[in-house]
Amino acid sequence: MLSDHALAAFRSALGADRVFDDAATRALYACDETPRRVEPDAVLFPSSHDDVAALARIALEHRIALTLRGAGSGNVGGALPAPGSVVVSFECMRRVLEFDPANRLIVVEAGVVTDEIDRIARGAGLFYPPDPGSSAYCRIGGNLAMNAGGPRAVKYGVTRDYVLGLRAVTGDGREIRTGCRTTKGVTGYDLTRLLVGSGGTLALVTEATLKLLPAPEAVATLRVCFASTRDALDAVSRVMHQSVVPCALEFMDHRSIDAIRPTGTADDLPPDTRALLMVEADGAVEDLPRQIAALKQALGGAGLLEIRSGFERDAIAQLWAARKSLSNAVKQIAPLKINEDVVVPVSQLADFVDFIDHTAQAQNLAVVSFGHAGNGNLHVNLMVHPDDADEMERARLAHEAILLRVLALGGTLSGEHGIGTEKRRFVPLEIEPATLAIMRSIKQQFDPHGLLNPGKLFPD
Amino acid sequence: MLSDHALAAFRSALGADRVFDDAATRALYACDETPRRVEPDAVLFPSSHDDVAALARIALEHRIALTLRGAGSGNVGGALPAPGSVVVSFECMRRVLEFDPANRLIVVEAGVVTDEIDRIARGAGLFYPPDPGSSAYCRIGGNLAMNAGGPRAVKYGVTRDYVLGLRAVTGDGREIRTGCRTTKGVTGYDLTRLLVGSGGTLALVTEATLKLLPAPEAVATLRVCFASTRDALDAVSRVMHQSVVPCALEFMDHRSIDAIRPTGTADDLPPDTRALLMVEADGAVEDLPRQIAALKQALGGAGLLEIRSGFERDAIAQLWAARKSLSNAVKQIAPLKINEDVVVPVSQLADFVDFIDHTAQAQNLAVVSFGHAGNGNLHVNLMVHPDDADEMERARLAHEAILLRVLALGGTLSGEHGIGTEKRRFVPLEIEPATLAIMRSIKQQFDPHGLLNPGKLFPD
Repeated sequence: MLSDHALAAFRSALGADRVFDDAATRALYACDETPRRVEPDAVLFPSSHDDVAALARIALEHRIALTLRGAGSGNVGGALPAPGSVVVSFECMRRVLEFDPANRLIVVEAGVVTDEIDRIARGAGLFYPPDPGSSAYCRIGGNLAMNAGGPRAVKYGVTRDYVLGLRAVTGDGREIRTGCRTTKGVTGYDLTRLLVGSGGTLALVTEATLKLLPAPEAVATLRVCFASTRDALDAVSRVMHQSVVPCALEFMDHRSIDAIRPTGTADDLPPDTRALLMVEADGAVEDLPRQIAALKQALGGAGLLEIRSGFERDAIAQLWAARKSLSNAVKQIAPLKINEDVVVPVSQLADFVDFIDHTAQAQNLAVVSFGHAGNGNLHVNLMVHPDDADEMERARLAHEAILLRVLALGGTLSGEHGIGTEKRRFVPLEIEPATLAIMRSIKQQFDPHGLLNPGKLFPD
Repeated sequence: MLSDHALAAFRSALGADRVFDDAATRALYACDETPRRVEPDAVLFPSSHDDVAALARIALEHRIALTLRGAGSGNVGGALPAPGSVVVSFECMRRVLEFDPANRLIVVEAGVVTDEIDRIARGAGLFYPPDPGSSAYCRIGGNLAMNAGGPRAVKYGVTRDYVLGLRAVTGDGREIRTGCRTTKGVTGYDLTRLLVGSGGTLALVTEATLKLLPAPEAVATLRVCFASTRDALDAVSRVMHQSVVPCALEFMDHRSIDAIRPTGTADDLPPDTRALLMVEADGAVEDLPRQIAALKQALGGAGLLEIRSGFERDAIAQLWAARKSLSNAVKQIAPLKINEDVVVPVSQLADFVDFIDHTAQAQNLAVVSFGHAGNGNLHVNLMVHPDDADEMERARLAHEAILLRVLALGGTLSGEHGIGTEKRRFVPLEIEPATLAIMRSIKQQFDPHGLLNPGKLFPD
């Protein structure tokens, strides 16, 4: 348990109204989007970089483990409290410190909501490309920790590609600045990108300088129905093999379509639809027809049932309805979702989804797959009943078989969700011992006492 | 001096024809594009990853410092041999290990010439975007060490943005693999980008998996003449503030134009031209007129003297003639070039170039500035006579004043050349002690005996 002395030190440094150890608050911060719960000893709400530096020094002095938390919207246990730890919530660090449209950059505190960054940028004709599904409520600090992606990654890349520099506090209380404010810079090691995706295990990131791009004038959307998964994924390969890069290339398998039928959002799909692609292009109004024509040509082929286009906001929203209803619909299949976020080479997608289908059948499991096909990034969801021990064991076997297949195909275990607590036992399947040893030794340099997010990212 | 025992061990591991310690070879590998010379004790020519692993183990056993070398085309002393070191030249590691157009990637050994990667990619409708000025002869390993850029960086980013994964050998002989083969991946720390730009001080990179993009159908070029530097750089700001991102936005100041006059390549510029921009757009043939119209509109403003457009190969080459003649022309001004590669925020470029002009006048120096204005990346060249002690001292003062101004403007010391031996004393001006200490401790994890590129990147 947290000592009274430590608690008093936190209160003295941050203010009494920023340190909570009551039962209600501890219960509220006991979980993220994973089903597990661990109550922290206390929750801290720093309001500035200096607050974070102060709390890190106190944690160091008292050897208190810290669990870093943005919005708690992650789904790999990245913000799940380590036992006996104190949660550091960044949700009160929501200041936009600087917006410099002339240099296409914005400097924000770690608790700023991702969509707010985009909204501010658009006010000046710019935009912030990374668009994780949780962008309406997730915090940029969480995006930085997990190197968040989203549909637009197929054209614009991920969080990592938009971070110019960071301000942070290491696990041993050192305050550092990484990177620069310009789009080029090679002075010293790239600590910026070392921190991005490190899951909060190296430093408490307090501020980020982010790169913005000119906002595309307009977007056009295609909803494309196919007779089979393989037909749809072959079309993905064709799209990725021509020169118009879509700004979204999303895939839903037949089980996803079955899942949304009760919601009514599948009613306007051709009845024999067994796979769906959402394809989006953005750019100048004048240039969109050319892009859409090229994309339609690439999409044409075996099994294509229907293409519907939308160029206006309402029409686009209508086309996305099926895809947007999916997350909630999936939850109706079974109470627990074992959520994978694997990536395989785009050319292997069709074979990989076949493998998932066979595995699901062999183990008699409900497996729903959808995701960012243009990056080869599939969210494979094994829907299970935690009380059914037999099903859970079959799910475990299927899960491992799927991950091994991912690696055999030259893929990677996580595309955009990160490792957290939930995936860490699989890390040695992908990363060789020598490489993992280097990562551990880097961790040691930033956080010699292992106080930052213990039990995350690394296998035991 | 290298012991006979160590030399024999290298010969035994690599083959006698891959280990040279004769005077002629040592003289040939005594320098890169910096004026200094240090003869290495020997030069090794590994032909594979396994060779590199073997030589690293021998170097470790005998505590022999290694100097890593691609083409030796760098200009910050990155490949300048450390005294008493052995050069590892990657020029025999030129195999393309895999080309996978369906997944838009290529796997190459570190000694492959950058242009060759682009040439192979274009054969399948793809391209490799980074285009350093030396791309016809530099090696990808050197590009990785320095995170090379080039004109296209303004639209497409730098080397770092195209590296998916690496194979490497650390300074203590461990063989590691970093990253993955897919465009998304967040499993473990981002060692890939830690190695990119590390100047060969962390590991011997042997193989790289690079991301390719669909090749643009066509390119169009504008040569734009202005009455003053400020007019030209204000136009750069306008270009970067609208939505068409050019694939090159190059700047030449009035001293650059004066420098090329003797070559004849300035003959077709309006006589009162005091600054030149080269602006290029790429994309679909059908879309280029729209892009060019938008760029011309942004370029229009005070001091604009002339815009010439080129859409065909010969016309484009003609427009680039002035810019391409610059490097050689500059060498005629004085025997020694103190070459800076600074970056400032784009909106500060005009003030920064004013400052350079004033400094050059105050110190009575010839200073030629040109570069990648769209990234705020300027190559500032102080042209000096090394025998003129007074001029050298004035150059030293001007040089330091320019670097301090860069940092005061929120810029960075190096955009694409790296730090090497030549810039390392300035690093503490930009990087705070706590951050630098972390970098040094990371170095220690990869290379505990300091055998890789000693005397590079870090200040003494």
